Amino acid sequence: QETAGSADANDPYSSDPRRHPALIVNSEKPYNAETPPSLLADSFVTPIELFFVRNHLPVPQVADLSKHQLRVEVQNGKKKGAVTLNVDDLKKKFKPTTVTSAVQCAGNRRAEMSKFKKVMGLSWRGTAISNAKWTGVRLRDVLIAAGVDPNDDTIKHVHFEGADIDPNGGNHYGASIPFSKAMSPEVLIAYEMNGEPLSVDHGYPLRVVVPGVVGARQVKWLTTIRTSEEESPSHWQQKDYRAFSPAYNVGDNVDPASAPAIQEGPVQSAFCVPAPGSIIDAKATEIDVAGYAWSGGGRGIVRVEVSTDDGATWHPTELEQAPDQTLDNMWAWTLWRAKIPLPANKRHHELVCKATDRSYNTQPETPAGIWNMRGLLNNSWHRVTIDVK
Amino acid sequence: QETAGSADANDPYSSDPRRHPALIVNSEKPYNAETPPSLLADSFVTPIELFFVRNHLPVPQVADLSKHQLRVEVQNGKKKGAVTLNVDDLKKKFKPTTVTSAVQCAGNRRAEMSKFKKVMGLSWRGTAISNAKWTGVRLRDVLIAAGVDPNDDTIKHVHFEGADIDPNGGNHYGASIPFSKAMSPEVLIAYEMNGEPLSVDHGYPLRVVVPGVVGARQVKWLTTIRTSEEESPSHWQQKDYRAFSPAYNVGDNVDPASAPAIQEGPVQSAFCVPAPGSIIDAKATEIDVAGYAWSGGGRGIVRVEVSTDDGATWHPTELEQAPDQTLDNMWAWTLWRAKIPLPANKRHHELVCKATDRSYNTQPETPAGIWNMRGLLNNSWHRVTIDVK
Ligand SMILES: [Mo]
Ligand SMILES: [Mo]
Repeated sequence: QETAGSADANDPYSSDPRRHPALIVNSEKPYNAETPPSLLADSFVTPIELFFVRNHLPVPQVADLSKHQLRVEVQNGKKKGAVTLNVDDLKKKFKPTTVTSAVQCAGNRRAEMSKFKKVMGLSWRGTAISNAKWTGVRLRDVLIAAGVDPNDDTIKHVHFEGADIDPNGGNHYGASIPFSKAMSPEVLIAYEMNGEPLSVDHGYPLRVVVPGVVGARQVKWLTTIRTSEEESPSHWQQKDYRAFSPAYNVGDNVDPASAPAIQEGPVQSAFCVPAPGSIIDAKATEIDVAGYAWSGGGRGIVRVEVSTDDGATWHPTELEQAPDQTLDNMWAWTLWRAKIPLPANKRHHELVCKATDRSYNTQPETPAGIWNMRGLLNNSWHRVTIDVK
Repeated sequence: QETAGSADANDPYSSDPRRHPALIVNSEKPYNAETPPSLLADSFVTPIELFFVRNHLPVPQVADLSKHQLRVEVQNGKKKGAVTLNVDDLKKKFKPTTVTSAVQCAGNRRAEMSKFKKVMGLSWRGTAISNAKWTGVRLRDVLIAAGVDPNDDTIKHVHFEGADIDPNGGNHYGASIPFSKAMSPEVLIAYEMNGEPLSVDHGYPLRVVVPGVVGARQVKWLTTIRTSEEESPSHWQQKDYRAFSPAYNVGDNVDPASAPAIQEGPVQSAFCVPAPGSIIDAKATEIDVAGYAWSGGGRGIVRVEVSTDDGATWHPTELEQAPDQTLDNMWAWTLWRAKIPLPANKRHHELVCKATDRSYNTQPETPAGIWNMRGLLNNSWHRVTIDVK
């Protein structure tokens, strides 16, 4: 693998891969970067090199693919067992499956929430989300082959661990999902995205893809799967990635148990076009808009609408959705676009968008009811101001 | 069955049952009535006689229970078959199951949406919702016994028909749910509520209980179940119970296909106490509040918060939830209560509540983004104004 710089034994990030220069970097070490909005709206399937990157730790390197092993530790009632598989075993023993699924960082649109009232965390704008065609094998098939009984009600969660390790603390990245979700047919142990092997930043050689769930649970550089009665003990499951009540402020001592570990996210939409601060000719009577929408749990997007008068009236948009997915099982995102009439005689326009999903949930107007100290899951109406010249 | 008046051959509603005088009536024929708010918040399980009533048609009477028949028409690949069961058959042949589940009318809180901007439909205030302990048999068990293969991917929907019939048009009430939901273990053909036989208004002798889905699909006086590749052809599935875009106004000619038939509803909460217009002593520094919350799809309520400053700050409330249900399978409602501090020196207080569910969806601040001509699924922040004297 080509790396970004020469190896430096003192820098655990020195063997991180090279990245596309168009990515908007929020943090170099660990590397976190989002997709330029105009490029994001261009492709229903995000090109691999433009897919947003959310790394918690240095990128682990796999020098010899044949040596990468996946350990699957399962229980069946009180019996415990484990099997070890390499990537070739997975490909030979299980049926390959492809699912188009969007991955969104739980911190997407944090910068806007922080403008409403300051929060902690990486200052993601609005494009810490991308959509890919993932190929791999079904997690359920692997669990069953390893000895899991699908009706075993002693199993409540399935844990994942990655090869990425904290250079200070020695802990691997980890997360878990509910057993019922792990047994759903859309959940994959993926080895390809968009028809190519996973890139190094996206988990080469193996990652979990959990459609309908936030990115933080879709563990990259997967080395271990474990059934359990409890959620993952990892920091990111137990302490982080929980959206606390707006009653708690930055610096408050919060009981993590006061909010559940995020799994599905709420309904979301945002503009990719126009860019904030764009200038439009005073004679223009309409404007092209485009963006993305998505909701957790496979709840398909029913509509996305745009307003130029703060929600008093709404304009429909045209939706692009995965042709093989229905409103009840929509793992991919929705891209939307429209030409919107502009009111006359204004110096500025504030454009607003909001989506409605299959459960008829919608986005809240502002962050007032959803603000949380960690700035997670901001899905308030997205607002873009443009100037008339 | 005791009826409300003497039978009148010219009035199809003359054999409707007597009802509890405390119910707040929105329509006499068909009978539609909601629960007084203060009584609703008193009981986690709503007493049968206070359970809100939503009838679309005259109540059908079952004179001889042994003659009530349930016809189950199923397909298995291209083979079709049908079985007929009476209530005794159901009780003898299948395992009884009890689920605590809230039923909410899709039109609940329509009156508030109509104040925002006029809509069509029964003027439900905020208590067209109740919670009961339903006992019956699993729909999946009955379908499988009738010949359905749980993995049959030609079956997309399951239809229900009631004995209630339109005196003008001759059509029975009908609805459908997706096949995947019909096969979920929480969906019942119920014959009891709160340990007693179903009351006449709630579907005696059989109704479908579809936890996590709006009331309109939970067909009462059940006579027919049918598997299908299509949704129910009934008026209420095809034309009604769809929340159209706010871009359409009352009187517009809307394509029903522009919005899907409502199944799961969005996250909801409302005050039961205090009543709007309550008067509070000028020296009071706090106030007791109580209400309900619920979300579709079994998404449990994570928190309900109350604000006295339009959402700038929030106060937590104490939640009462079904002890046998988890955040991932919460079919019952949540009751909540708190003592909230009141700001000093005000002539009026506007109290606001909003809930957050397990997918971290929340309620929108106002109906601006969710308004629809039929006034369905109003889940905007509930606001109650009280006066200081
Ligand atoms: Mo994330
Ligand atoms: Mo309803």
